[in-house]
Amino acid sequence: MAFKEYKPGYGFLGVIEDGSYVLILGGGKSWLVKVVRGRTFHTHLGYLDLGSLIGLDYGSEVETSSGHRLYVMKPTIFDLVMKLPRKTQIVYPKDMGLIALKLGLGPGMKVLEAGTGSGALTIFLANLVRPDGHVYTYEVRREFIRLAKRNVGKAGLSDYVTFVEGDARDADVEVDALVLDVPDPWDFLEMADRCLKGSGGFASVLPTIDQAEKLVSALKEHSFTDVSCYELLARRWEARIGMSRPSSRMVGHTAFLVFARKVLPRPPS
Amino acid sequence: MAFKEYKPGYGFLGVIEDGSYVLILGGGKSWLVKVVRGRTFHTHLGYLDLGSLIGLDYGSEVETSSGHRLYVMKPTIFDLVMKLPRKTQIVYPKDMGLIALKLGLGPGMKVLEAGTGSGALTIFLANLVRPDGHVYTYEVRREFIRLAKRNVGKAGLSDYVTFVEGDARDADVEVDALVLDVPDPWDFLEMADRCLKGSGGFASVLPTIDQAEKLVSALKEHSFTDVSCYELLARRWEARIGMSRPSSRMVGHTAFLVFARKVLPRPPS
Amino acid sequence: MAFKEYKPGYGFLGVIEDGSYVLILGGGKSWLVKVVRGRTFHTHLGYLDLGSLIGLDYGSEVETSSGHRLYVMKPTIFDLVMKLPRKTQIVYPKDMGLIALKLGLGPGMKVLEAGTGSGALTIFLANLVRPDGHVYTYEVRREFIRLAKRNVGKAGLSDYVTFVEGDARDADVEVDALVLDVPDPWDFLEMADRCLKGSGGFASVLPTIDQAEKLVSALKEHSFTDVSCYELLARRWEARIGMSRPSSRMVGHTAFLVFARKVLPRPPS
Amino acid sequence: MAFKEYKPGYGFLGVIEDGSYVLILGGGKSWLVKVVRGRTFHTHLGYLDLGSLIGLDYGSEVETSSGHRLYVMKPTIFDLVMKLPRKTQIVYPKDMGLIALKLGLGPGMKVLEAGTGSGALTIFLANLVRPDGHVYTYEVRREFIRLAKRNVGKAGLSDYVTFVEGDARDADVEVDALVLDVPDPWDFLEMADRCLKGSGGFASVLPTIDQAEKLVSALKEHSFTDVSCYELLARRWEARIGMSRPSSRMVGHTAFLVFARKVLPRPPS
Repeated sequence: MAFKEYKPGYGFLGVIEDGSYVLILGGGKSWLVKVVRGRTFHTHLGYLDLGSLIGLDYGSEVETSSGHRLYVMKPTIFDLVMKLPRKTQIVYPKDMGLIALKLGLGPGMKVLEAGTGSGALTIFLANLVRPDGHVYTYEVRREFIRLAKRNVGKAGLSDYVTFVEGDARDADVEVDALVLDVPDPWDFLEMADRCLKGSGGFASVLPTIDQAEKLVSALKEHSFTDVSCYELLARRWEARIGMSRPSSRMVGHTAFLVFARKVLPRPPS
Repeated sequence: MAFKEYKPGYGFLGVIEDGSYVLILGGGKSWLVKVVRGRTFHTHLGYLDLGSLIGLDYGSEVETSSGHRLYVMKPTIFDLVMKLPRKTQIVYPKDMGLIALKLGLGPGMKVLEAGTGSGALTIFLANLVRPDGHVYTYEVRREFIRLAKRNVGKAGLSDYVTFVEGDARDADVEVDALVLDVPDPWDFLEMADRCLKGSGGFASVLPTIDQAEKLVSALKEHSFTDVSCYELLARRWEARIGMSRPSSRMVGHTAFLVFARKVLPRPPS
Repeated sequence: MAFKEYKPGYGFLGVIEDGSYVLILGGGKSWLVKVVRGRTFHTHLGYLDLGSLIGLDYGSEVETSSGHRLYVMKPTIFDLVMKLPRKTQIVYPKDMGLIALKLGLGPGMKVLEAGTGSGALTIFLANLVRPDGHVYTYEVRREFIRLAKRNVGKAGLSDYVTFVEGDARDADVEVDALVLDVPDPWDFLEMADRCLKGSGGFASVLPTIDQAEKLVSALKEHSFTDVSCYELLARRWEARIGMSRPSSRMVGHTAFLVFARKVLPRPPS
Repeated sequence: MAFKEYKPGYGFLGVIEDGSYVLILGGGKSWLVKVVRGRTFHTHLGYLDLGSLIGLDYGSEVETSSGHRLYVMKPTIFDLVMKLPRKTQIVYPKDMGLIALKLGLGPGMKVLEAGTGSGALTIFLANLVRPDGHVYTYEVRREFIRLAKRNVGKAGLSDYVTFVEGDARDADVEVDALVLDVPDPWDFLEMADRCLKGSGGFASVLPTIDQAEKLVSALKEHSFTDVSCYELLARRWEARIGMSRPSSRMVGHTAFLVFARKVLPRPPS
């Protein structure tokens, strides 16, 4: 069997192949599935011969054994981030979006990530800086490194990521942007002063406001300016002609986001 | 004078050159300025000889004529989007971030934008799909096309954008993602059916909930699945040791965001 | 057994009597219980002889059969509203609070309520206008009238409420304030014009924004001014030294609230 | 001239008299005005002979000298709270509503308020506990006591309020509910233990989350249970047929609200 990794972002050209990851949608649910000839996908809506998907266009409609209609989509980075196995709370997509914008991420940039976790944010960052940028990600817990490597591999992004098992405070790499997903980011600011280029963007993801206020205060003692703290609330709507209302269930909190920009103070004359 | 366009995203390598755009920060304010030898930048904090910036690293601290400290940063796409001249309400960065994630944008993708406006969203999209992707943007109002071209040029992204003065409903290009920033998106769904590849992402930005409910309803009549409607609320915090509180001023509303995915229904047998 | 109804609001004087309603707190849960000599209260924290509570002060700590600590509180109107049996979605306390303020409710006022439902809002209104005000509440569904009467009785507020089984559009009573908890409030505006005194407050509780916009539009065609529409979002915090964050679960939507004030246009001369 | 104080809450019976306070509405604005025969009210919409209002029903439409239409309403407690002169940030109505509900306020209750300020919250509390309840309010700053007395007098509620110039920590009065509008509420908990009856409600209004977390922690060390912390976000909507959207301006923060209930721990045996 030829194994085809997910090719992120290169559009929706081509067709489903043996080994491709697909996102199957149906009955208000979704599943991330690897297409393997000879395997069967089971769901409460009936089963599906995965081999029968090979050669179909992404977006195709198929039918289960019990006659239910499913759609076979190409997963986005967003889908992967939400579906890949994880051992920790991941950074939410709405928060990732603002991080990318505030850091000015784009192709060609070098990013240092402290706190790889399950690799969700790593995938997101790697996708944005490829093909000629790179992510250096640090994690002290071996089992997380292992999980993150698998997840980044499934996303087809291994070429753009260097995994370091160790303390990010020891990092010695020059980068354009820095993301801290650690509980004590204020302890990483000497490293930030050392590794981040002038004008480089700083972002940190924190569950509590107390961490945010401690970090904001510490940033002002180091070489940073334009320090800000945000939270984003996402509200889903049930939009229907004549009956629109916000969903009654809502996520009340994901994280506080702290941003700053690195400056190069003049040496004392 | 050698004219150097802004090079988006290729990190913060190099130094400020004659012709570079810089973001000057100071006194809680910021200005987007083009560095031109011989010109002077005037602010309430004193003036600055722009020629003196040439050769400095991005992030450098400089002093005005009256002794105030300023920082000279490399502008991010976010900064450009907020600072470039505009004639219309632009899509807010927090909303752009979610659009990028839901559409699965990344290098190599082809995107169709209906409603170029001042080009803010165009810049954002072009930055994400370069170097080998492309944005096709449609606008019926000539003066907007002109402004948007100038803005995209300043952002150094002209190579990745095709401007079409005309009605996007006549578009005939195959794309991986579609963004509608028009008041009547339900009228663009035949075009969406025609131009969007299977599994391609659909996004629309709408000021009123009535437009959102009309669009959601129309999408369900066309070849789309996974239709959703969101709004994002961004809350800025004043984080200070022992005195943290949300800012009392807040933007209460920017836009409703409608998302969907294109499917390929089976032809009638 | 002497039956003692709940006496709302007259402070916390006196002690728990045979027949009193109490709110029992323990293990993060709460129960509304009627104290009856000889009965036993069972919970996952053990059981409690209810007779043993008679003569205790409200707020007392007691112990269950298995040694768990419980507190026996006097229920507030808020507690009753949340705990009494209901067949319908009730108006949320946060929304009730704003309704009371916008209508200027206080002792002595006459209020008309259309849509008694389970009587939760009726209890709230009656508590605010007693001892010399009154609530006239209309409901077309007999089983709701029956439930609401029982609930208002348990709250000790029957003297302040007149229940009418019938269509509120036929009401012929002069009132100081009007609350509509019906799906089609725009059909009740002729009645509002007839029953509401000049300067009287109007409030309506609506699940969808479409209803709100239809009502706002209709109010402007009738004798009303100062028309407004609000929604309230309540966010609970987990406040702990050094670890404060908003709760991750949140109610995303309860109702849209529409307010207005009755005016007396000058008769044509 | 007979001076008629505002009679809160006793409905809208009767007519405008010499000495009455009225709320004049017009052109999207509102003014709290005392009707005095012989005086003139000036606005950008023209002027109005106040004497001409005497004998009119509340809610009446009148015309200014320049032909603009105004409405003359009876002010609610809400209107008074928003319009009376103040020297401090007042508690917002939405927050007052939740405080009233969580404390179970109603006629007959005795309430202690620490931090009278301009008397806005005092007016709100007094209106809810009359005619047979009472508010004891403490304030150390003499100029605030003076302003608050004037404001409570204008609201016609002086009979229900005792003003104490002094430190609320020295209070020695038994009450059913306690409201702390002071910056250091944790220092008032011994007083709370002493003055608040068993089962009595506790509320505190705090601008920063750090104060809230410090208070929540301190309450758990004292005789309190059911400790909670909330914030309320009010969102105004521009509801119009086919064009509804939230207002773009919004108040992002008013206060954190901390609630608890007093318990009576068993004496050591």
